[in-house]
Amino acid sequence: MTVGLRLSSLIVILSKEALSMQKPRLMTPGPAPVPEDVLLAMAQPVIHHRSAEAKQNIVESVAGLKQVFKTENEIFILTASGTGAMEAAAVNTVPKGGKALVLNAGWFSARWGKVCQAYGIEAVMLDTEWGQPVDPTRVANALSEHPDTACVMGTLSETSTGTGHPVEAIGKVVAKTDAVFAVDGISGIGAMECHTDAWGIDLLCVGSQKALMLPPGLAFVSVSQKAWKKIDAFDSPSFYFNLKTARKKMVEFDTPYTPAHTLIIGLKVALNRILAEGVENVWARHKRMSDACQAGVQALGLALFSARPAEGLTAFVVPEGVKDSAIRNKLQEKFGIYTVGGQDKLKGKIVRIGHMGYTDELDVISGLAALEMVMAEVGYPVQPGIAVTAAQRVLLSPYKTI
Amino acid sequence: MTVGLRLSSLIVILSKEALSMQKPRLMTPGPAPVPEDVLLAMAQPVIHHRSAEAKQNIVESVAGLKQVFKTENEIFILTASGTGAMEAAAVNTVPKGGKALVLNAGWFSARWGKVCQAYGIEAVMLDTEWGQPVDPTRVANALSEHPDTACVMGTLSETSTGTGHPVEAIGKVVAKTDAVFAVDGISGIGAMECHTDAWGIDLLCVGSQKALMLPPGLAFVSVSQKAWKKIDAFDSPSFYFNLKTARKKMVEFDTPYTPAHTLIIGLKVALNRILAEGVENVWARHKRMSDACQAGVQALGLALFSARPAEGLTAFVVPEGVKDSAIRNKLQEKFGIYTVGGQDKLKGKIVRIGHMGYTDELDVISGLAALEMVMAEVGYPVQPGIAVTAAQRVLLSPYKTI
Repeated sequence: MTVGLRLSSLIVILSKEALSMQKPRLMTPGPAPVPEDVLLAMAQPVIHHRSAEAKQNIVESVAGLKQVFKTENEIFILTASGTGAMEAAAVNTVPKGGKALVLNAGWFSARWGKVCQAYGIEAVMLDTEWGQPVDPTRVANALSEHPDTACVMGTLSETSTGTGHPVEAIGKVVAKTDAVFAVDGISGIGAMECHTDAWGIDLLCVGSQKALMLPPGLAFVSVSQKAWKKIDAFDSPSFYFNLKTARKKMVEFDTPYTPAHTLIIGLKVALNRILAEGVENVWARHKRMSDACQAGVQALGLALFSARPAEGLTAFVVPEGVKDSAIRNKLQEKFGIYTVGGQDKLKGKIVRIGHMGYTDELDVISGLAALEMVMAEVGYPVQPGIAVTAAQRVLLSPYKTI
Repeated sequence: MTVGLRLSSLIVILSKEALSMQKPRLMTPGPAPVPEDVLLAMAQPVIHHRSAEAKQNIVESVAGLKQVFKTENEIFILTASGTGAMEAAAVNTVPKGGKALVLNAGWFSARWGKVCQAYGIEAVMLDTEWGQPVDPTRVANALSEHPDTACVMGTLSETSTGTGHPVEAIGKVVAKTDAVFAVDGISGIGAMECHTDAWGIDLLCVGSQKALMLPPGLAFVSVSQKAWKKIDAFDSPSFYFNLKTARKKMVEFDTPYTPAHTLIIGLKVALNRILAEGVENVWARHKRMSDACQAGVQALGLALFSARPAEGLTAFVVPEGVKDSAIRNKLQEKFGIYTVGGQDKLKGKIVRIGHMGYTDELDVISGLAALEMVMAEVGYPVQPGIAVTAAQRVLLSPYKTI
């Protein structure tokens, strides 16, 4: 038997770009890098999603998620992006015509308002300047003004501005009222300290593609007893995101509709990694990476955008006379580093560097080294090594545990 | 149906080591990191090794290897470590009682002598001080002294000392004689410029786990017409590494014995990566990484061990009063960086940092940043950022193509 020589699949590119190896370095605030063992687990042959094995994967994943989320509440795995979990939280706890208080401080918290609008929920928008943290006192005042609020919708880490919000303090305020507290923890969970139960979060909404170290496709929502009371009080108009339907199926460790269960296989592996490192240690690592990245960026003379930086990403203000796209394109072309710019009114004004999930201190060093070189190339005055050195100083300091 | 809650597979470790994420960073001179798409290709379901698909993989892999090796000669894929390819080269070209000239300048070139010994081949050892390159004039003199030499056995990159040998010049010397030139290119190929045919290499021996970006398990040997004349002149005592048997099977793009064909699937992907980047560009990248790593190490006041550094690794001398194991253990514990120490008489005296294959400039920066921090911790005087800055200066210089 002879096999013909077919060479079509051997790609030979000799362009200018080929000079760079283009090792992909996802430094976006989601998706974040996925560990090799997670990728490999998901590359296994597809099993049936109703098999005992698939159910066991759900059992173990939910048990792991509870430890990561710091909750005893039920957790539901949704096949959706994080926004699906937000929609589930909103549409199951607030009936049409009901009232929600939206802690609006960025592109993603504004999305809570859009979800409410779609379902005829009255959204009271408590606006905070982008980049500033939400003030818990203002939340208390708004709740006094609107005692009929069914749900307060907030954010742990506002991805659009790189801001961490004082969820613990806000939770204390909401806990004193009849309202439930729904928190978008999509880019926050796994990167920032968060105690779902202790902080009074009734509905925690999370996506798979950030610090949980998975590709996108899964969303998670935890539901407190206080939230169940709201949910059981009316018939939610949602079919796909109906939490009562999900609860019925969860008795058998199942999902109402076909789940993205190869992602759940990956989730199990990713959670084992987080639990092996220790949730508190994972938070400490992110704090450290965040501190190092901020120190590096500031050493370059660049201003941080946020007044209270989140720990999974660092947003800096693009300096006068430089184009954000020039910085980001060069980072990508020369070093394979993907970052993101600003959204909506921040377009062109900030650059956001992600450092979450399967990312370590040396990734931050690499990113800063590349940023230095790129900034020099776009004509910004750079003293070589200054950002890296500033970050190293942070990393040489004793490890602070949380 | 109910599924019992089994949590045994959720590993919870809360040891001190768990503080570090331990992202694995292979900076050893082999194995080298394997790209994600190669890992995923190999994670596919196993096909049959005699199927048309498996043969097509051999066809394409050999075509790709010829481009990487810069040869028109036949290439054989062996399921073995690189040493298997060396054994094949030796035992097929030199009969029992025949003579070989071994260019002995390190732990791995000495291995050629051990292979000869095992098969009753007379090995003339041309000793060169470890860390020094082989002198082509001495090779010429030795061949004049031993005109009955059947094979000259040399090394492109001596992994034990981090030395690159002048293979081109040696090749010219050997080409004038009746001897064939066998070269161990295991840690060299893909990392250092090498033109198999133009440089007169009759048998190029390569392993999969270095700059070819695969796990270990495959070895490759290219065979020139001059070599075939030697091979056809006698019956080699080797069964498994018999190149005549391999040649018979290769007519049908097959192998004599079951090949590690999932590795060949990965090889196809890895070769596509190399060819897409461009072989000359891959060499240039390694030259640049090598220059940057050397600059960084020297900026720290550390001496390079080799007088002619290879481009896939950098070996530095452990300074007085510091233990090499302390450096390497801390690199591993704190940053997940695996390096290697010295072998045989270099034990404890050098540290070897690999930068080959699926490794880019920022990996070198990371490695140097970690080395700085670790050296400071073991009590060596370090000015933070100095190694990184020196490396960055190299990386900011214009790209030199080969």
